[in-house]
Amino acid sequence: MLKKYLKNVRDFHPLIHNITNYVTVNDVANILLACGASPIMADEPEEAEEITSICNGLNINIGTLNSRTIPAMLAAGKKAEELGHVLLLDPVGAGASRLRTDTALNLINNIQFDVIRGNISEIKALAKCGGHTKGVDADAKDEIQKDNLEQAISFIQTFAKETGSIIAVTGAIDIVADKDTAYVIQNGRAEMGKITGTGCQLSGLITAFLAANQQHSLEAAATAVTVMGIAGEIGWSYMQTGDGNSTYRNRIIDAVYHMDGDTLEKMAKIRKIATKEEA
Amino acid sequence: MLKKYLKNVRDFHPLIHNITNYVTVNDVANILLACGASPIMADEPEEAEEITSICNGLNINIGTLNSRTIPAMLAAGKKAEELGHVLLLDPVGAGASRLRTDTALNLINNIQFDVIRGNISEIKALAKCGGHTKGVDADAKDEIQKDNLEQAISFIQTFAKETGSIIAVTGAIDIVADKDTAYVIQNGRAEMGKITGTGCQLSGLITAFLAANQQHSLEAAATAVTVMGIAGEIGWSYMQTGDGNSTYRNRIIDAVYHMDGDTLEKMAKIRKIATKEEA
Amino acid sequence: MLKKYLKNVRDFHPLIHNITNYVTVNDVANILLACGASPIMADEPEEAEEITSICNGLNINIGTLNSRTIPAMLAAGKKAEELGHVLLLDPVGAGASRLRTDTALNLINNIQFDVIRGNISEIKALAKCGGHTKGVDADAKDEIQKDNLEQAISFIQTFAKETGSIIAVTGAIDIVADKDTAYVIQNGRAEMGKITGTGCQLSGLITAFLAANQQHSLEAAATAVTVMGIAGEIGWSYMQTGDGNSTYRNRIIDAVYHMDGDTLEKMAKIRKIATKEEA
Repeated sequence: MLKKYLKNVRDFHPLIHNITNYVTVNDVANILLACGASPIMADEPEEAEEITSICNGLNINIGTLNSRTIPAMLAAGKKAEELGHVLLLDPVGAGASRLRTDTALNLINNIQFDVIRGNISEIKALAKCGGHTKGVDADAKDEIQKDNLEQAISFIQTFAKETGSIIAVTGAIDIVADKDTAYVIQNGRAEMGKITGTGCQLSGLITAFLAANQQHSLEAAATAVTVMGIAGEIGWSYMQTGDGNSTYRNRIIDAVYHMDGDTLEKMAKIRKIATKEEA
Repeated sequence: MLKKYLKNVRDFHPLIHNITNYVTVNDVANILLACGASPIMADEPEEAEEITSICNGLNINIGTLNSRTIPAMLAAGKKAEELGHVLLLDPVGAGASRLRTDTALNLINNIQFDVIRGNISEIKALAKCGGHTKGVDADAKDEIQKDNLEQAISFIQTFAKETGSIIAVTGAIDIVADKDTAYVIQNGRAEMGKITGTGCQLSGLITAFLAANQQHSLEAAATAVTVMGIAGEIGWSYMQTGDGNSTYRNRIIDAVYHMDGDTLEKMAKIRKIATKEEA
Repeated sequence: MLKKYLKNVRDFHPLIHNITNYVTVNDVANILLACGASPIMADEPEEAEEITSICNGLNINIGTLNSRTIPAMLAAGKKAEELGHVLLLDPVGAGASRLRTDTALNLINNIQFDVIRGNISEIKALAKCGGHTKGVDADAKDEIQKDNLEQAISFIQTFAKETGSIIAVTGAIDIVADKDTAYVIQNGRAEMGKITGTGCQLSGLITAFLAANQQHSLEAAATAVTVMGIAGEIGWSYMQTGDGNSTYRNRIIDAVYHMDGDTLEKMAKIRKIATKEEA
């Protein structure tokens, strides 16, 4: 299954419009190319709708948002929704400033996103659950661990129900859920948190996976999260003496570039959680 | 000959002003340093003319253009022209939105560029020849192959005549031509298309080569295109198991850094095409 | 001593707000993570004060400044000063345009910076000493060498006295001084100048070191400069055949990631210069 979703991205070559921060934008472009998609970046309101029209998916990331790019996010988002394109929101730093929290909420209220992906503190800030956003990182107090996993899934599914979106929360344990079904993914390595932008890259990846697998959005999102985690593990296996976080960044993208369907199936630590409807 | 043009860049250390997109800007800066030039980036209208005045060449790249940077492009371009500086336009995504096409055409109409460099779809969009820009990549339908090479050269030389610029079209086969003479370059590797920004980097490189070889603009542009292609081949030769597009990006810039004049002459697959005047 | 300042950064994990250029921003973020700090980037006036409030230090870098980000620099700077946060100014390109020189001087006149870090040409431009800024690089005519070291220290300490800031001037020989005491650091390699952004990265690093060592600002700044130089030496020791400036960039950040306190003490080429008060 995972294998098929990856193959579809490589066969379909989705074109992804990214309105994203200037910190990690180059890595987002390269990971999209690595998985078989094509990136285009455009954040000027005058062209945002037109650019999104020629694409298959729109990845909105609010890191380094500004007064010019916020209207571009709204305009492109509405246009993408109108055209039935895949839509993802990455609420970078929601909870860290009122502008970020309000912008994310305003986008959610006006646009139907297929996926909202963030760390647990950002998602808590949006769900008004009192998260402790520490800049753009999750606060240790909020982190999902084995002992609060059930509670975390329940919280995430409630937010999925409220928003009508798939919610992808990444951290030590990743959860990808809609209101009915949840996937728990335990791939990846802690060292990924010492690289800027692995979250932003994952948001690009998820958008591409959904654009190429539109009938299976939840599974496609869960697959993209798994691909990223396994790329983190494979990339790490190539680390040599002296290599640190900057080289690791390259190795993870390289691992997505070489990701093989069978390896993906074999290394995946993903499980589906019994849910209300299915229990 | 190629050797001399490279040496001149390293001896002259041209300072290049780049008004460029935020996606690939870091790689543009590093490839300029790698070839022996120095980069400066400045896109605020208030300082664009002054910054360009202290430089030897201006590289205008319209990727992620916006309402603030467009006037900076125009102002800097006019000032650079007035001062007799080298001027290059990279019309990233022309054809993908009206804003990009119009901005590129407006720049071409108001400023005399020494070089316009793009993929074939972008150049077709500007020549109003019905290109099929797919985001920022060339459409497969437009690509220059052996069987349409003659036709492509003719089209490019017509556009060179109309604009008075050297036109550099890069893809599987690269063409660098003015109205009278064309160079066909067949260095490089297909995998370069899986890295974001090799085109943007090449535009920086061409600007530096022209700035250091002002009496031989066409040859300098063709040399820069050849250097980039050979760097792609040399960089590939250093790829190790597990290396993918992100590492390849570094290895290409590294190869420019170490580019040796003799190697350049030896590996170059460049030929001059008989033209009207010379035939 | 150096060892302790490094340990404090790793133990305290300072959160650093960066208003910085889009050329080198990704490397600044990764080097902050490498040293144990966390980065956040935000340059929109509407959120600049709020973001800075949750941080421990503010790193203002005027490269690619614009009409929107300049007010954000001023607002965030004033707020950080009010809150007693660490404040650093990196006057990239001061002397290259009136906008950059005026903006840097305006920031210095309105905000009390703990540290001003630049190359010698930039610092001379701000001190109105007739520096020869060549774009964003120091002019060879201005460079600090053994034979003008004493004179350079005297000039830097005069500027430190005028501004009330620690002045960090980096180049072949680095000087970190306040009005009373100067450190001379001779780590690093000339090849670091062939990478874009080693200066910007160092400014991020210094901000983190001061934020974690607030009672020892001068020593913390000198330590950060030493760490960067040694990382340049260690990174170079891992260079393999074919590696150039792009890979070197990664290896330097990697070396900061792995920097060990004992190695730091052993490799440091830092000396304290006898000064007025202490002489």
